[in-house]
Amino acid sequence: MEVELKEMQDDLESLKRALSDPNHHPLILKLQERVDHLTNLAKSATTRRSKVKDMSAEVVDSNPYSRLMALQRMGIVENYERIREFSVAIVGIGGVGSVAAEMLTRCGIGRLLLYDYDTVELANMNRLFFRPEQVGMTKTDAAVQTLSDINPDVVLESYTLNITTMKGFETFMESLRNQKYCQTKNGTGVNLVLSCVDNYEARMVVNQACNELNQTWMESGVSEDAVSGHIQLLIPGETACFACAPPLVVASGVDERTLKREGVCAASLPTTMGVVAGLLVQNTLKYLLNFGQVSPYLGYNSLKDFFPTMAMKPNPQCSNSPCLERQKEYMLAKPARDAAAKAKMEAEASLVTECPIHADNEWNISVVDDESELETTDAHTSSDALPTGLVRELPSADDFQKPPVPEETGNPIDDLEELRRQLDALNAD
Amino acid sequence: MEVELKEMQDDLESLKRALSDPNHHPLILKLQERVDHLTNLAKSATTRRSKVKDMSAEVVDSNPYSRLMALQRMGIVENYERIREFSVAIVGIGGVGSVAAEMLTRCGIGRLLLYDYDTVELANMNRLFFRPEQVGMTKTDAAVQTLSDINPDVVLESYTLNITTMKGFETFMESLRNQKYCQTKNGTGVNLVLSCVDNYEARMVVNQACNELNQTWMESGVSEDAVSGHIQLLIPGETACFACAPPLVVASGVDERTLKREGVCAASLPTTMGVVAGLLVQNTLKYLLNFGQVSPYLGYNSLKDFFPTMAMKPNPQCSNSPCLERQKEYMLAKPARDAAAKAKMEAEASLVTECPIHADNEWNISVVDDESELETTDAHTSSDALPTGLVRELPSADDFQKPPVPEETGNPIDDLEELRRQLDALNAD
Repeated sequence: MEVELKEMQDDLESLKRALSDPNHHPLILKLQERVDHLTNLAKSATTRRSKVKDMSAEVVDSNPYSRLMALQRMGIVENYERIREFSVAIVGIGGVGSVAAEMLTRCGIGRLLLYDYDTVELANMNRLFFRPEQVGMTKTDAAVQTLSDINPDVVLESYTLNITTMKGFETFMESLRNQKYCQTKNGTGVNLVLSCVDNYEARMVVNQACNELNQTWMESGVSEDAVSGHIQLLIPGETACFACAPPLVVASGVDERTLKREGVCAASLPTTMGVVAGLLVQNTLKYLLNFGQVSPYLGYNSLKDFFPTMAMKPNPQCSNSPCLERQKEYMLAKPARDAAAKAKMEAEASLVTECPIHADNEWNISVVDDESELETTDAHTSSDALPTGLVRELPSADDFQKPPVPEETGNPIDDLEELRRQLDALNAD
Repeated sequence: MEVELKEMQDDLESLKRALSDPNHHPLILKLQERVDHLTNLAKSATTRRSKVKDMSAEVVDSNPYSRLMALQRMGIVENYERIREFSVAIVGIGGVGSVAAEMLTRCGIGRLLLYDYDTVELANMNRLFFRPEQVGMTKTDAAVQTLSDINPDVVLESYTLNITTMKGFETFMESLRNQKYCQTKNGTGVNLVLSCVDNYEARMVVNQACNELNQTWMESGVSEDAVSGHIQLLIPGETACFACAPPLVVASGVDERTLKREGVCAASLPTTMGVVAGLLVQNTLKYLLNFGQVSPYLGYNSLKDFFPTMAMKPNPQCSNSPCLERQKEYMLAKPARDAAAKAKMEAEASLVTECPIHADNEWNISVVDDESELETTDAHTSSDALPTGLVRELPSADDFQKPPVPEETGNPIDDLEELRRQLDALNAD
């Protein structure tokens, strides 16, 4: 629009020169003032912040990263600025994927790869992110428009394609393998793939790609009644892949497309999808920036505000052959991995005795006498002590949320084999 | 901008009439074409959907409510369209409040009242909602701009004021009492107040207002290290109010403003704030539309993905006198309330035996033979049966998330009195 207005200004100037009668000049001057005014209006509507070279922790209103860099001062993240080195692929830019993309963009992620083939509809307006004026645009174009406006520091790559088609899958694989911006240990160009698709077929395609590439990914989903959801971490060879324990409806050979009927649509809510996107990106940040406990699986039942967790081992009878290869590699590398983990633990243990924690004590935190039984009721204290009079309905997090140690939990392999046999028997009917 | 362009068109027309020399006409024609083009550009940038008279459940791409009305078909909500009758006030349009406002707007809430005195800064860009081009605008103006664009059906009322000032508090109370759009049983004009403020002083002001007005409200908060948060339901007289069990730091007489230091800011993350906003609005929808279990308190510890719940009875020694009045009223009304609840339960019990549930069975769901041990692993099944090989880390939701029955849990009143005494002793030091 600014280009058009500039050209109008030139046209008016040449018109003024061409007019011999100076009586007409005031009218032209008025027109020129109008164009100036419009130019200002257009400018204020498209003001974009300039790119930032380094993430600063300076506490000024003009610093878009001050609240994120504060995570270092608070002792949550060791080096927040590392986030600029990471590439994350998001498959499916719908109710969950678009919000996940916005969160990562606002966190200042290095590079985002976006995949979707759908267009924005008014029927999507009950979820966050897309705006009514974007109706008719492809979801990838609309996302790039909004995200580049929010944070010009993020490198955005968008792919308007369907990964479940042959050609789409090829381009998808190629883009994940491209190491121009980012090189990972496993030989891909992305650190994490987030699956935010809405059907089983597309999930199986992401699973196939990630198993082939030995690419760690996270899966997410929201139920058709809009009130439940989940996220799951999948590490090829180490955890169950998506084909290791498929939902019954698909394992039993029913084509899921026959389940969809004309004039019937799934329900959706911005709340459930916002929560699932938040949990997904929080798990992503914990995984990439190495803080807190990365959840292997986290469910969200909104009717009861219940959040189940669990861990799943891979199925040695999995029908996906790259999964079996990754399982073999994982088993073979186990002795070296155990030795490295032990060495790291010992090194950390010796480090702890060498220097005091929080030497600078920015927040003047002091140790309170154990004799005092008073405790703050703030939600973020994870202390076991509750103020007198308050009753805990759940055991404390430490009691049961021990980090999952799949190697030590019974022998689920035999059980999964049993499940497989039952599924096969069902398919044979 | 469209007004300005229309006026330019008129100016060009009069200039054309004033010019005797027809040689100049082509230049003017060219200018007119340019203005036409700009008018089209400006239009496409501000396309807004028109208002919708009734919420339709029709499954077409152009229906912004199809995915919400589907909640009825799925049996989650009895009458979704009731949402248009509700008025919700949101105090604090920051990282949580703005997202809560957007979620309610996309859900098609009837009326939103927004309160904030702050302006948008680049330092807010690490949270969802506000865009860089809104920097410098008041948060209320920026929110109205974005929200009215997203859903023109929602009635928006914004108040740029600080509720902790005398004048701000008066206007705040007046706006909550205004019954022009909505009349509630307790004599206010809003169905729910959501507190999304970031300091204790403002929370105490919301608490004071709601206790005085007998107004149910929900409180929310995010920790300064950005990795925890909580939501809480407060019903005057029935649950603990915010002054019944204040955080220790304030109860002990420390001025919280002295805790803030120059050059130090709290950390924040779009993930934690998005999750807290999602849980808050989900609880709001459950409360307003009467589905699921409304949580009295729900915490979110993101480092461990732990979600504690609890219920708190009011403190008969509360320092807030309207709270004590509400407690008295609640106790006096108890016999009538119990009788009504009993009658309702009996009526519902007799209704269940009269007609089958889900008579239309839109989704062709059939009962599976009990003999089959196979179960889907989908996150949204709340069934107790797990596929063989999967181990549950937590007890099932039904086992421990019974709806809180404050009347029957021990005698926390004495304990709160004890806590009060300890706090007083501490203040006296």
